[in-house]
Amino acid sequence: MHIDLNCDMGESFGVYTLGYDEAAMPYVTSINVACGFHASDPLNMLNTVKLAKQYNLAIGAHPAFPDLVGFGRRVMAASKEEIFADVAYQIGALAGICQTQGLKLQHVKAHGALYNMAEKDIAVGTAIAEAIKSVDPDLYMLCSCGSPMVKAAQAAGVKYVEEAFADRAYTKEGTLVPRSQPGAVIHDVKLVAERVLGLVKTGKVQAIDGTEIALKADTICVHGDTPGAVEMIKEIRELLEKQGITLKAFGIS
Amino acid sequence: MHIDLNCDMGESFGVYTLGYDEAAMPYVTSINVACGFHASDPLNMLNTVKLAKQYNLAIGAHPAFPDLVGFGRRVMAASKEEIFADVAYQIGALAGICQTQGLKLQHVKAHGALYNMAEKDIAVGTAIAEAIKSVDPDLYMLCSCGSPMVKAAQAAGVKYVEEAFADRAYTKEGTLVPRSQPGAVIHDVKLVAERVLGLVKTGKVQAIDGTEIALKADTICVHGDTPGAVEMIKEIRELLEKQGITLKAFGIS
Amino acid sequence: MHIDLNCDMGESFGVYTLGYDEAAMPYVTSINVACGFHASDPLNMLNTVKLAKQYNLAIGAHPAFPDLVGFGRRVMAASKEEIFADVAYQIGALAGICQTQGLKLQHVKAHGALYNMAEKDIAVGTAIAEAIKSVDPDLYMLCSCGSPMVKAAQAAGVKYVEEAFADRAYTKEGTLVPRSQPGAVIHDVKLVAERVLGLVKTGKVQAIDGTEIALKADTICVHGDTPGAVEMIKEIRELLEKQGITLKAFGIS
Amino acid sequence: MHIDLNCDMGESFGVYTLGYDEAAMPYVTSINVACGFHASDPLNMLNTVKLAKQYNLAIGAHPAFPDLVGFGRRVMAASKEEIFADVAYQIGALAGICQTQGLKLQHVKAHGALYNMAEKDIAVGTAIAEAIKSVDPDLYMLCSCGSPMVKAAQAAGVKYVEEAFADRAYTKEGTLVPRSQPGAVIHDVKLVAERVLGLVKTGKVQAIDGTEIALKADTICVHGDTPGAVEMIKEIRELLEKQGITLKAFGIS
Repeated sequence: MHIDLNCDMGESFGVYTLGYDEAAMPYVTSINVACGFHASDPLNMLNTVKLAKQYNLAIGAHPAFPDLVGFGRRVMAASKEEIFADVAYQIGALAGICQTQGLKLQHVKAHGALYNMAEKDIAVGTAIAEAIKSVDPDLYMLCSCGSPMVKAAQAAGVKYVEEAFADRAYTKEGTLVPRSQPGAVIHDVKLVAERVLGLVKTGKVQAIDGTEIALKADTICVHGDTPGAVEMIKEIRELLEKQGITLKAFGIS
Repeated sequence: MHIDLNCDMGESFGVYTLGYDEAAMPYVTSINVACGFHASDPLNMLNTVKLAKQYNLAIGAHPAFPDLVGFGRRVMAASKEEIFADVAYQIGALAGICQTQGLKLQHVKAHGALYNMAEKDIAVGTAIAEAIKSVDPDLYMLCSCGSPMVKAAQAAGVKYVEEAFADRAYTKEGTLVPRSQPGAVIHDVKLVAERVLGLVKTGKVQAIDGTEIALKADTICVHGDTPGAVEMIKEIRELLEKQGITLKAFGIS
Repeated sequence: MHIDLNCDMGESFGVYTLGYDEAAMPYVTSINVACGFHASDPLNMLNTVKLAKQYNLAIGAHPAFPDLVGFGRRVMAASKEEIFADVAYQIGALAGICQTQGLKLQHVKAHGALYNMAEKDIAVGTAIAEAIKSVDPDLYMLCSCGSPMVKAAQAAGVKYVEEAFADRAYTKEGTLVPRSQPGAVIHDVKLVAERVLGLVKTGKVQAIDGTEIALKADTICVHGDTPGAVEMIKEIRELLEKQGITLKAFGIS
Repeated sequence: MHIDLNCDMGESFGVYTLGYDEAAMPYVTSINVACGFHASDPLNMLNTVKLAKQYNLAIGAHPAFPDLVGFGRRVMAASKEEIFADVAYQIGALAGICQTQGLKLQHVKAHGALYNMAEKDIAVGTAIAEAIKSVDPDLYMLCSCGSPMVKAAQAAGVKYVEEAFADRAYTKEGTLVPRSQPGAVIHDVKLVAERVLGLVKTGKVQAIDGTEIALKADTICVHGDTPGAVEMIKEIRELLEKQGITLKAFGIS
């Protein structure tokens, strides 16, 4: 029994530092590296990749809308052609940086508003999926569990994995409780670790209304943007390992 | 006997159109495609690559300083690490776009101020050369004839070719006559074609002072930014073909 | 009897040229100058303002979403605070450029997706109106005839004028026929000029369904992006002048 | 007897936070606010200006080269026309933001590489000075003590003040000891405060070689980028006040 922990990283930009990448790296197995559109720049990407190599982490591209000021969190009415090209460009850019260190990409995970749009709009997910497959058919697309992203990945014939969010509550339909609602984010570190453990062992988790729902997850999304978030990853990892679950990147057979 | 004609292309940006790419494509063999730092954007890059595929052209990356407003023509005091990372990023980005069309890159040619700096400063050339080689050792670095760029390429162990400029005058030392000097740019279409022919056949060309100089060129740089420039390429190509010289990309064996 | 003709200008960027500004300037009375977010850059803005000074034109700011690649045409989910700040910034930037030439701004007209959003969403219009008023209460807000922009301007207490579009068809409700529908854009130069004349003289125009509608317009929006568009402005101006209508900027008393 | 303490602020960008603005504001009298070219964005500028208003601080524009990735620290071969326009644009942009809060700018201080170039090259300083004066002749140009910037300001006829750096060592010629040399930056908080006090009272300071040099300073540059830097400002201010020196912005008569 094994699982992957994925975490957004490399979101520093120029002189600006964001996140606790190095503190979090010992505990995760896959990282999603910003590609210069919502965060990061070529040198920051290179430094992130070098660090990831030291920790033997699997690397994924984290493409976004071209919106540094808004950190890629603002929905943009980009065309499907623009999304396709933007994603291909960003995957390639990070792949180029990885190649300088003798590394290959494992996966692609859309960031921010692009991810959120793809969760709801299969046309957006399809543009992403087709870009991934046409750049490199060995790449996995990282999809939100049971969302239209999965259908888009299947239709495009791209390899994919599904992710659940460690610290987020789910509705009984298996969708994320919107952040605007109370209880959407779970802050209790031990509870989060227990939920992840249950999810990995049973494929089930308790929804916000108390019912038990099925949630197929190949990877668990965790955060490294605060010291507390890093503590949470550590707790999750330690509990999983104690229970005999192997932590490894999904792309490793 | 054969030669390559290389031309900057894909320098449109968003709604802005620049250059006569489609008019020039039938006459050249290799193109240098802007990568979003001095010009172009992912969708324009994709459209350029699709067009190049129709004309069966060899594609190279044309990395530059991050300066859209200045079209990459303004010298920037970037560090060697920044140049290395910027170049790797841009090569990768275009390679990603090419892969969506089943294409591979042939070469890399630095653009504008980055090229000019590399012509004089071996440290800049080395940063570029090392980026190219570490991203993909199959890529050629396009160097100005007999310049420090060649030494940088040799030291880095990267494959390289040397280029001469079709419409530029040379000093008796084999360097370009600066644009600020009279006679630096040759406008006579027939004369330019004759000079290129001579250069290809004899490896020699007349310098601005009348002396004959040796100029080893694997590829000839031409321009497609005006209708007149396209006429010049056509003239060059027709004269070369009439004289039995094969036009083909340098990366094709 | 008098009217203003307003036209987007200064949309070149770096080495890229867009529009026929100098050809159109003799015929218009007010211009909307791009402020660097969807198009233009400081030097292009300065050159535009210098040219406008020669033609004695009234100058307005043309603020947009920060989206050079998309030319400000892509809807962005920016917050009201972001829109307020973005608009204030862009007005100020152009005002600074104008001050170097001893000029003051007359008005502000939102560009592209920002304009379109404000036409429908009073909250967006209000953010724009409040930015304009708080930067300089002498500035006019340029609003689409009878749209929620007008209500936003009134509520914010900002000076405003209403504009009609010379070459666009209107529905019987007085809204623009969407570009996706047939007949949305009127290409017949003489017909456009006649419609503008009628509109200025009677305050009425024929809607696409043949009914006559009232359209209060303080200014008529014309285009200068093609040579044909410039011809249309010339035709409009000549007809108006022949009919004794004075062409002058709305801010001139 | 009075003096001004000026400090760079508003250098956060999007989601990225930089500097301890709010901690430093109680101790300084003038601030230099980033204008979106090397740091900041319209909303961050607005928030900075609102905060400065609470602390009753005099506000200056801090224009820079357009280089967010390099934080405006990389020398760029921009033309004089580009520098003039870039500076006018940035002053105007911040003035616009200030106007929304009923505030006016006091001064302009070039940032990073632009400042460093102006310290050495009178043509760069002149482009800056002329931009300032033509945008608003009430604005002060902030110049490095006794540098060519002062001559540029005088030649352009712009109001100016001279600044000394609180924590930097000076050569016996009155220029800054380059950061690459030992002793260039003084870290001893008490020593720095004593040097500032001496400078204000006597117009003299000890150079790195032990000689006493004259240094006319209307304002002292301090830093707020680390908690330790804020401590230093506090120490300086407290010592000055204890010695009966009034802290006030130079623009206040």
